[in-house]
Amino acid sequence: MAGTINRRSKKAGLPPGTLIHVGERKTEMVRITVIDYDEGYFQEREAKTVEECFPLKGKPIVTWINIAGLHQVDIIEKIGKQLDLHPLLLEDILNTEQRPKMEDFENYIFIILKMLYYNETTNKIKSEQVSLIFNPDLVISFQEEKGDVFNPVRETIRSGKGRIRKMGADYLAYALMDAIVDSYFIILERLGERIEYIEEELVVNPKPETLGYIHNLKREMILLRKSVWPLREVVSALERCESPLINESTCIHLRDVYDHTIQVIDTIEIFREMLSGMLDVYLSSISYRMNEIMKVLTIIATIFIPLTFIVGVYGMNFEYMPELKWRLGYPVVWVIITIISISMIAYFRKRRWL
Amino acid sequence: MAGTINRRSKKAGLPPGTLIHVGERKTEMVRITVIDYDEGYFQEREAKTVEECFPLKGKPIVTWINIAGLHQVDIIEKIGKQLDLHPLLLEDILNTEQRPKMEDFENYIFIILKMLYYNETTNKIKSEQVSLIFNPDLVISFQEEKGDVFNPVRETIRSGKGRIRKMGADYLAYALMDAIVDSYFIILERLGERIEYIEEELVVNPKPETLGYIHNLKREMILLRKSVWPLREVVSALERCESPLINESTCIHLRDVYDHTIQVIDTIEIFREMLSGMLDVYLSSISYRMNEIMKVLTIIATIFIPLTFIVGVYGMNFEYMPELKWRLGYPVVWVIITIISISMIAYFRKRRWL
Amino acid sequence: MAGTINRRSKKAGLPPGTLIHVGERKTEMVRITVIDYDEGYFQEREAKTVEECFPLKGKPIVTWINIAGLHQVDIIEKIGKQLDLHPLLLEDILNTEQRPKMEDFENYIFIILKMLYYNETTNKIKSEQVSLIFNPDLVISFQEEKGDVFNPVRETIRSGKGRIRKMGADYLAYALMDAIVDSYFIILERLGERIEYIEEELVVNPKPETLGYIHNLKREMILLRKSVWPLREVVSALERCESPLINESTCIHLRDVYDHTIQVIDTIEIFREMLSGMLDVYLSSISYRMNEIMKVLTIIATIFIPLTFIVGVYGMNFEYMPELKWRLGYPVVWVIITIISISMIAYFRKRRWL
Amino acid sequence: MAGTINRRSKKAGLPPGTLIHVGERKTEMVRITVIDYDEGYFQEREAKTVEECFPLKGKPIVTWINIAGLHQVDIIEKIGKQLDLHPLLLEDILNTEQRPKMEDFENYIFIILKMLYYNETTNKIKSEQVSLIFNPDLVISFQEEKGDVFNPVRETIRSGKGRIRKMGADYLAYALMDAIVDSYFIILERLGERIEYIEEELVVNPKPETLGYIHNLKREMILLRKSVWPLREVVSALERCESPLINESTCIHLRDVYDHTIQVIDTIEIFREMLSGMLDVYLSSISYRMNEIMKVLTIIATIFIPLTFIVGVYGMNFEYMPELKWRLGYPVVWVIITIISISMIAYFRKRRWL
Amino acid sequence: MAGTINRRSKKAGLPPGTLIHVGERKTEMVRITVIDYDEGYFQEREAKTVEECFPLKGKPIVTWINIAGLHQVDIIEKIGKQLDLHPLLLEDILNTEQRPKMEDFENYIFIILKMLYYNETTNKIKSEQVSLIFNPDLVISFQEEKGDVFNPVRETIRSGKGRIRKMGADYLAYALMDAIVDSYFIILERLGERIEYIEEELVVNPKPETLGYIHNLKREMILLRKSVWPLREVVSALERCESPLINESTCIHLRDVYDHTIQVIDTIEIFREMLSGMLDVYLSSISYRMNEIMKVLTIIATIFIPLTFIVGVYGMNFEYMPELKWRLGYPVVWVIITIISISMIAYFRKRRWL
Repeated sequence: MAGTINRRSKKAGLPPGTLIHVGERKTEMVRITVIDYDEGYFQEREAKTVEECFPLKGKPIVTWINIAGLHQVDIIEKIGKQLDLHPLLLEDILNTEQRPKMEDFENYIFIILKMLYYNETTNKIKSEQVSLIFNPDLVISFQEEKGDVFNPVRETIRSGKGRIRKMGADYLAYALMDAIVDSYFIILERLGERIEYIEEELVVNPKPETLGYIHNLKREMILLRKSVWPLREVVSALERCESPLINESTCIHLRDVYDHTIQVIDTIEIFREMLSGMLDVYLSSISYRMNEIMKVLTIIATIFIPLTFIVGVYGMNFEYMPELKWRLGYPVVWVIITIISISMIAYFRKRRWL
Repeated sequence: MAGTINRRSKKAGLPPGTLIHVGERKTEMVRITVIDYDEGYFQEREAKTVEECFPLKGKPIVTWINIAGLHQVDIIEKIGKQLDLHPLLLEDILNTEQRPKMEDFENYIFIILKMLYYNETTNKIKSEQVSLIFNPDLVISFQEEKGDVFNPVRETIRSGKGRIRKMGADYLAYALMDAIVDSYFIILERLGERIEYIEEELVVNPKPETLGYIHNLKREMILLRKSVWPLREVVSALERCESPLINESTCIHLRDVYDHTIQVIDTIEIFREMLSGMLDVYLSSISYRMNEIMKVLTIIATIFIPLTFIVGVYGMNFEYMPELKWRLGYPVVWVIITIISISMIAYFRKRRWL
Repeated sequence: MAGTINRRSKKAGLPPGTLIHVGERKTEMVRITVIDYDEGYFQEREAKTVEECFPLKGKPIVTWINIAGLHQVDIIEKIGKQLDLHPLLLEDILNTEQRPKMEDFENYIFIILKMLYYNETTNKIKSEQVSLIFNPDLVISFQEEKGDVFNPVRETIRSGKGRIRKMGADYLAYALMDAIVDSYFIILERLGERIEYIEEELVVNPKPETLGYIHNLKREMILLRKSVWPLREVVSALERCESPLINESTCIHLRDVYDHTIQVIDTIEIFREMLSGMLDVYLSSISYRMNEIMKVLTIIATIFIPLTFIVGVYGMNFEYMPELKWRLGYPVVWVIITIISISMIAYFRKRRWL
Repeated sequence: MAGTINRRSKKAGLPPGTLIHVGERKTEMVRITVIDYDEGYFQEREAKTVEECFPLKGKPIVTWINIAGLHQVDIIEKIGKQLDLHPLLLEDILNTEQRPKMEDFENYIFIILKMLYYNETTNKIKSEQVSLIFNPDLVISFQEEKGDVFNPVRETIRSGKGRIRKMGADYLAYALMDAIVDSYFIILERLGERIEYIEEELVVNPKPETLGYIHNLKREMILLRKSVWPLREVVSALERCESPLINESTCIHLRDVYDHTIQVIDTIEIFREMLSGMLDVYLSSISYRMNEIMKVLTIIATIFIPLTFIVGVYGMNFEYMPELKWRLGYPVVWVIITIISISMIAYFRKRRWL
Repeated sequence: MAGTINRRSKKAGLPPGTLIHVGERKTEMVRITVIDYDEGYFQEREAKTVEECFPLKGKPIVTWINIAGLHQVDIIEKIGKQLDLHPLLLEDILNTEQRPKMEDFENYIFIILKMLYYNETTNKIKSEQVSLIFNPDLVISFQEEKGDVFNPVRETIRSGKGRIRKMGADYLAYALMDAIVDSYFIILERLGERIEYIEEELVVNPKPETLGYIHNLKREMILLRKSVWPLREVVSALERCESPLINESTCIHLRDVYDHTIQVIDTIEIFREMLSGMLDVYLSSISYRMNEIMKVLTIIATIFIPLTFIVGVYGMNFEYMPELKWRLGYPVVWVIITIISISMIAYFRKRRWL
């Protein structure tokens, strides 16, 4: 967390509009892939420079430029100039600690999303920023690293299946957002499995590590929620369909993404409640155990301490202790000891400690 | 829970609009029942194929097609084609992990609801998705399994009692929703009984299993709430009566369903608060018990440990211990022991431990 | 609670609009009282049948029909027919587990309220449903039992004091609602006294029963809130004065009822917060007590266990133990014991345990 | 609290509009003071009867009538008749358990506020109701007792400093409200000091009384909030400046009062959060202490109980115990005891108990 | 906190509009710096008196007057007269306990913000009030002390980099706000580091001081939130761009500040949740430790107390104890002791205490 803010605070003191890459991930080379398509046409190529991406094909064709890697600031700058993008928008793309948001700049729409990965070994969620810009015939997507979350979309375009090749750039933008939101379900699945695993452990053998696991999951939930909550407003704003850049038929699909987002948020909230419940169970099972331990101690101590006192009495070395001389002294002591033990056990039975 | 998300995540990576049945329940055969009725006419038949359901009778007649079982995707597809339904709608029907929702597609209205069953042996709530589509003269309902929750509605149509035969398809859709919401009260009744049972157990003999029961009920409440909360918006949107597909006279009845939904939600919230209160009682009764146990231990130990020390003193084997030679040594020790015991007991009385 | 839902769930499976009395209270006979009045005229009579109540007197006169007892469904049905009331409304009157609500049926207004009684012996709040229907010259009130909460209103009408005789049926409806809301203050007074009593007990001698009392009061609060919260919307809707059935001068009085309702809700919330605070105090006073008990045990054990060890040492029977032969062996042991005791006590002093 | 409701419940059963003084404070005599002023003119006099207050001076002059004491109901009634006030308004003035509220009766505005006093000895907040009525040239203020919170306003009018003499009655009403809200800061100051005092005590030596103090402060906060929260709406409604009775220049000043009210509410919320935090600290410091106590007990018991067993072994009186005859038996036992003690201490060191 | 309210309460009783400096920080001399600039022109000078600042240069030039130090009330008064500012505004500037707020006085806009500093040694956040007034060609900023948070802005103006020299006074006001909000990230970074440090300590060795640290951080969070929350409304109101004083191009930048403010608020909330989580972990780790301590005590006591009883038995001095004469008596006792020990350990193993 401190790291996050740290990176953000690097910018404090610079004039607004200064382009600085805030993230820490440096892929070897920024990779630019360009896909042109319409219902009949399909071309996929890798571009070395920004210039290669432009000029775009004629109007009926949709172009998707994907930029994987943000550390070469000049690339972002060139794209900004080429398409006359607002400087603050470029800044937002590079500042990878942005909240998800949507901004409508009349002739293009700008969206920031979070791609999430679940690291199985550290049980931590890694977050990557994805920015989308689209106008009627162009979508540009910016990733921090080359990920594979967009591959299904690429595959669908290549194969020409589904409706994507028949639709405009707004539908492509929707498909990319849909791919990201769909990937959240995979993370929720992993988290759900982990919660179930911990819940079982909690029943079998609660340990302080269990508490640590719960605590860590709660932290991940906090961060997850931070990434997903604002998405709701983003998709809701798009789905209201106020921009002429979004076709009405795409709106119905966006409503679908909205439903999924709500479902993700619901699930996060349910997980949070479950984790809170598990914490309660952990704490009360510790209390209960303590109770059990105390009971054992008390039963043992309460039975034997008085008995030890009695045998202590007849361990005294007074010259004049008549009982010591009695023939039946020793057996009588044993009888007394037995009576005390039995009545103690009866008392514990009555109090339901045994 | 993980299972739920699991099923949902199967879809990640597929192009939007792909029809896949996400649920796990496979009935032997999808069962299609068709009921045609108006005030004077009534016909009920079972259809083998989708084609048999159509063509529909002339206008004044209302047709109700019920499809029990979702695993034959082609059936859903055919119905979709026949009625020109939106592909995303078909997807939603098959994806049984949907939130309850309502969508107005101008010439028909689409509703997703949750049917709930309470499993007495596992004390778990099972959820089944029900989808409704209706236009002025047709209602199609999709169930995951053939349930009996719609039987009362069927019975009412058959018998011709009530107003249902005089009204349109919107009234039938209302009657189905009403039947589902009414069935929630049965679940709440079971849960209420279980809460009362646990509450009594809590007073008589709190055990760690009691905590487990409370925790499980809280979980069920979370899931129940997830199914019922969104229903509120669904019914509220219908009841606002903005669609021409819903007659005004049906609206008043929908308001009634809305009231019932609110009552269900209220009761869930009350149950949740009660369970929280019970958790508090459980925890504090454990604390109180520990207190009692500690008191017993402390009283016994505090009385006998000093006495054991005293008898230990006169168990020492020093050659020169004048007390050991005294005639009254032994009785004096008993007097001291008695005094200490009595003053200890007085002290405990004063502190209200006895 | 389970009972409540139970009664409600009796209706599941019946066609909407079926009239069934859901409550369990059967008075011997349904009692119908009719009061006709205007500024100069007053007549009070008891009716045997519904027919006797009608025809109503001429327009300037206000008629108040009070029906105490809901178990004779035919009476309700006849009134419904006579006045052409909506079937769902009649159903709501009979279903005594309704939430408080207000519905405007253009030519009459329908209100459901809850009358509350505090049972001193069981410390439980009993809730009774009251339904009001009014149009410009008629008020019909339905009670489950003949209560005395409307007596002051009757008295005011009889005596002709106040403004009630000069005003219309809307003012009478207001006066009845005012009487009900006023009666809530009596309940709050009782609850307030009980909270104060428990709070004092909590300071003097916290017992597990105290916890039970707090828990029960919290439950009553949950149920009380359920009855009163929706009232806010009811009165607020009436007070907005959008119906032509309510005169503007009555609106100001309704605003007054609204203020009282808010005050009742405020007080309930304050009571809830107080009870939560008391639970915290109870729990922490138990913790504190445990602390005190542990201190006593630890002080005694920590002083005497080492001493018992020392005297144990000289109780050993080795043949070669030089100390046993020393003349000063025994007194030296006493000196050591005294030093250990004093230093222990000094240590406890330092740690503020004594 | 019970008292509050008690007083309120006195009214239940009376017809609405009955004037009854609900408060319990009876000053010896109701004191009526009248101040007439405009920019150039100033007159202050005490009135014996209501009649003396009227007739008012000519228009340009502002008249402020202050009535200290509400137990002479006839005075309130006469003023009501003189100014043609609504009966419910008079009732509200006398019912001193009202929530703060504002009502706009077209030709005058009616405001209820709470004056608060902090009693240093009981650490309780006393609340007094203040009602204000104003039209363009008259302000009437009703107090339960003669307080001194309005003295600064009086002083400002007398001295002619500030803008008050140049402004109308609405500004005077604002000045009175401002004086009341300003007096809240004094209370918050006292409460803040008390919280700091308790916080320090919590660090130095937490006692059960400390808990009592925190609990009491929380209660006072609940009551304080009840008095101040509704004020926000009151001032907000005034500040929206929709009434022609309030000049626009006064509105800016009312916005200032609004800001102060928000600041008071913020501070109350912060105090509440601090008190919650302090409760947590108290509880966990008790837990920590218990831990410390248990550690001491465990260390002592764990070291000496085994040793006592060992010396007990050689205190047995068997005839055939070879060790007892050994020359080195006794020193060897001491060596064993030392080894056990040291290893125990090492174990505790390792577990960080020492 | 008490100090804060204290300073505020100094004002109670004074007529509104009285100018009093409420803060406690007295710099040696109030320092007035004036910067005039436009795209081509730049002049920076220090003014001794308010008169020196005026008259302003011709229209195209933007003037920024920065006043560091508020204790010379006459300076503020003179500026107020020169620019015809509202008296309440001047009061707000001097009353340094104001909430952040924005007020639109048609021909100028008035903004109050909080500058925050993190004191590394006391781990406390210090808050300083900054007021901004701007019209189309003038910005006046008031600071309590000369801080360096505006230096980057000064530097940017001097160097002529960025867009600031090309834009109007509204952009300068934005740049100052941006500088302040950016400085919050530095504080969040420090707090984030501290939270991480405490979290680690919590895992390694929870101490009561750790609790104190958490508690202090929670307090700082409460105060931080108080300073930042209202900022959201302030920036949101500005960003809605309803005033003609703010150019549309500046609005996009204000939206950026708004995003940052939301990010700060999000982070504060996340920190708060983390601290709550840490408190839970602290409390439950204490509980767990207690459990461990109790286990050790119970194991030791449960094994040795019965053994001590047994050896006590054979330490009795009865004349007729046959076992004492047996040749194998002593070894048999050891066998019994061994059996008891082993079975006890087996029992603890079974209960998972070992």
